[in-house]
Amino acid sequence: MSDRKRVVIVGAGFGGMSAAKKLAGKNVEVVLIDKRNHHLFQPLLYQVATADLSPAEIAWPTRSIFSRSSNVSVFMGEVTGIDLTQQRVLSGDHHLDFDYLILATGAVTSYFGNDHWAALAPGLKNITEATDIRKNLLLAFERAENSEDEDQKRRLLNFVVVGGGPTGVEMAGAIAELAKKALSEDFRRIDPRDARILLVEGGDRLLGAFPQSLSDYTRQSLEGLGVEVRLGSPVSDITEQGVKIGDEFIPAANVIWGAGVQVPDLKDWVQKPSDRGGRIIVEPDLSVPDHRNVFVIGDAAHVAWRDGLAVPGIAPAAKQQGKYVARRILDIMNGRSIPDFKYSHAGNLATIGRHRAVIDLNGFKLKGWLAWWFWGLAHIYFLIGIRAPALVMVQWVWSYLFRKKGARLITGQDKDNARAVVPPANQKAG
Amino acid sequence: MSDRKRVVIVGAGFGGMSAAKKLAGKNVEVVLIDKRNHHLFQPLLYQVATADLSPAEIAWPTRSIFSRSSNVSVFMGEVTGIDLTQQRVLSGDHHLDFDYLILATGAVTSYFGNDHWAALAPGLKNITEATDIRKNLLLAFERAENSEDEDQKRRLLNFVVVGGGPTGVEMAGAIAELAKKALSEDFRRIDPRDARILLVEGGDRLLGAFPQSLSDYTRQSLEGLGVEVRLGSPVSDITEQGVKIGDEFIPAANVIWGAGVQVPDLKDWVQKPSDRGGRIIVEPDLSVPDHRNVFVIGDAAHVAWRDGLAVPGIAPAAKQQGKYVARRILDIMNGRSIPDFKYSHAGNLATIGRHRAVIDLNGFKLKGWLAWWFWGLAHIYFLIGIRAPALVMVQWVWSYLFRKKGARLITGQDKDNARAVVPPANQKAG
Repeated sequence: MSDRKRVVIVGAGFGGMSAAKKLAGKNVEVVLIDKRNHHLFQPLLYQVATADLSPAEIAWPTRSIFSRSSNVSVFMGEVTGIDLTQQRVLSGDHHLDFDYLILATGAVTSYFGNDHWAALAPGLKNITEATDIRKNLLLAFERAENSEDEDQKRRLLNFVVVGGGPTGVEMAGAIAELAKKALSEDFRRIDPRDARILLVEGGDRLLGAFPQSLSDYTRQSLEGLGVEVRLGSPVSDITEQGVKIGDEFIPAANVIWGAGVQVPDLKDWVQKPSDRGGRIIVEPDLSVPDHRNVFVIGDAAHVAWRDGLAVPGIAPAAKQQGKYVARRILDIMNGRSIPDFKYSHAGNLATIGRHRAVIDLNGFKLKGWLAWWFWGLAHIYFLIGIRAPALVMVQWVWSYLFRKKGARLITGQDKDNARAVVPPANQKAG
Repeated sequence: MSDRKRVVIVGAGFGGMSAAKKLAGKNVEVVLIDKRNHHLFQPLLYQVATADLSPAEIAWPTRSIFSRSSNVSVFMGEVTGIDLTQQRVLSGDHHLDFDYLILATGAVTSYFGNDHWAALAPGLKNITEATDIRKNLLLAFERAENSEDEDQKRRLLNFVVVGGGPTGVEMAGAIAELAKKALSEDFRRIDPRDARILLVEGGDRLLGAFPQSLSDYTRQSLEGLGVEVRLGSPVSDITEQGVKIGDEFIPAANVIWGAGVQVPDLKDWVQKPSDRGGRIIVEPDLSVPDHRNVFVIGDAAHVAWRDGLAVPGIAPAAKQQGKYVARRILDIMNGRSIPDFKYSHAGNLATIGRHRAVIDLNGFKLKGWLAWWFWGLAHIYFLIGIRAPALVMVQWVWSYLFRKKGARLITGQDKDNARAVVPPANQKAG
């Protein structure tokens, strides 16, 4: 037995993982809790949804990443609350004591008060959602191929993506490439190139965090891929049949939501001020006010930055914060002190289909295929940090660059899949 | 419009695919129907169940395989019956006319009359079953890690595989390697090497279709991997709590069924004699008695062979039959005639873990690592036939040979996964 302090980390996303890695091998006991058994490389999740990559290519079992770090325990479980006075993490009737706590619980999809839209327009935050979207996208083409009804066919081949941020742009571009390229020769009774892909944004431009010129380029590129971009078009309703944009109703079997995120639970747990997205407003050292041993990082934290803005909810920010709080905890234990957290913003990236991207590196703008390669290399660089073996990385690059056909599997309950599918026409050709 | 004859193929397994490939580009209209959208390389399905491979590594969208074959249409749909008089395939209220029909519907798991065991002891016939087994295997270790109850822990770490044929042998070996090797360093409160893996067989030896010496070798090899082999042990009951073998009750959270198969529906559809597994007893040209334009192939057919035996239900047999009936149909149309189907038996193969296999090539016996490499090369050879691009094949071999960590993801409904999981002990170490 030892008198080592225990650091509990809730959440195995980019923030929680980078804190745990920094604390691995140090003289502390680390307990990492997540309700899933894997760390997800979320920036590529849209490629699972559009059947370009398999889940196992962008997710790794959390505990295998720490198998050689004997001071790190990984637990799969759901945290239901925090007792800050007694320094305990709660999970139903059970609890776990901590000396230091890092809350890296992330964000979930926000429907801005229309929670009933969740079932009609799934977001893209975890593997199950991504494979469900994949299944529904692919089933739409299968059902259209089998359908005799022109209205039904039209509805099946209309795809609406809500939200013009990076997620919406990436999804719309990838669906367009799926329909217009990957699937283009596979059907006999429909032409997948007839699919209509709409990207709907309430604001007056795409990629609001980027310079105007890159927003314009993104719009033109998407239109070149065959995406209809609708700006200034807030969604007013979503039903089983489709989407209402202003007064126009667009029938669509697939609506995908990429319009916003919020932080659940956390403000109830810590009982401290949060912003309107539910992010906890933390101190300059990322601690919760009045609790210098409790930290919030990543998408769950509101960290002041510049021009009145908060640090953006992107992977590099979460990683920097994870590393910072790990160091901060070690320094408190050692009686040293480090300066407040300072976010270093490298830039914003977004891809538009397979060979185009836009990048804004603090004013240095890049677009087109060169930006796409930069985007690819940046992601490889981040992947190295997660998954050490070089062989595995080479495999990933390989499969991403060279695989044409991808992971176009429809899996899940057979009954559900086959039920709505009718056989081909009963007329014999001839 | 043309006067081309229509060949309808039901089932996109090895038999149906090889018939469709043979007919691709010929002067016939081919319609291939399957309730799933993918062709599955079933011999490696157990590796999905034990988290060695991802679904997309052993399954490919059926229609993409025929994208360049304009005379082949692929439909995802469920066949509900056959009208032999009117020459129609039925699907609910719809129907599809045929001139020639190839029934390649395959087999499903048989519980020998105990159908309620299906929910307690899943078989291994499709991707959904494989990923469900994978999830439950991995969750058992997660739950054992979180458990404070020794009995519950024991039950979670007991794995019972029923059936000593190739599927049972492969599953038991792969679960042993998962527990004793891949997972061995990943947990802190349990030792996955304590897992108990039982392989239960009613007969007096494993791999009944192989020579006795290879059966003995297989048993010794499995025992070397830490598998308890129970011969002459028919299962008398399966409950939520575990398995009853004779009078002994073995608590087990995971029971996997690899004991038998049967052919559903087909004998009702064609109203002709079948064997006790439901396989249709076909003519020497694989046609259904009295219907020279309707053929049954693969696992669904009982084809007389030698020594009173039927052709075995293995992939090479189904492929030979698919090719044969395709040629037969072309010859009937051209007024030629070909000899009756003759099965060419190359041999039997089974793997025992990652570096051992047994092979019986018509009396020439091979075992150990050399057999394993032979097994690997044989599978690569078959894969070439399915998935043309060499790059993709290299990737498969690569990932199979070099990937250590595999696809150990727990996906599916979050609520179900996390609910039964409690957090770690509330005592602080120290």
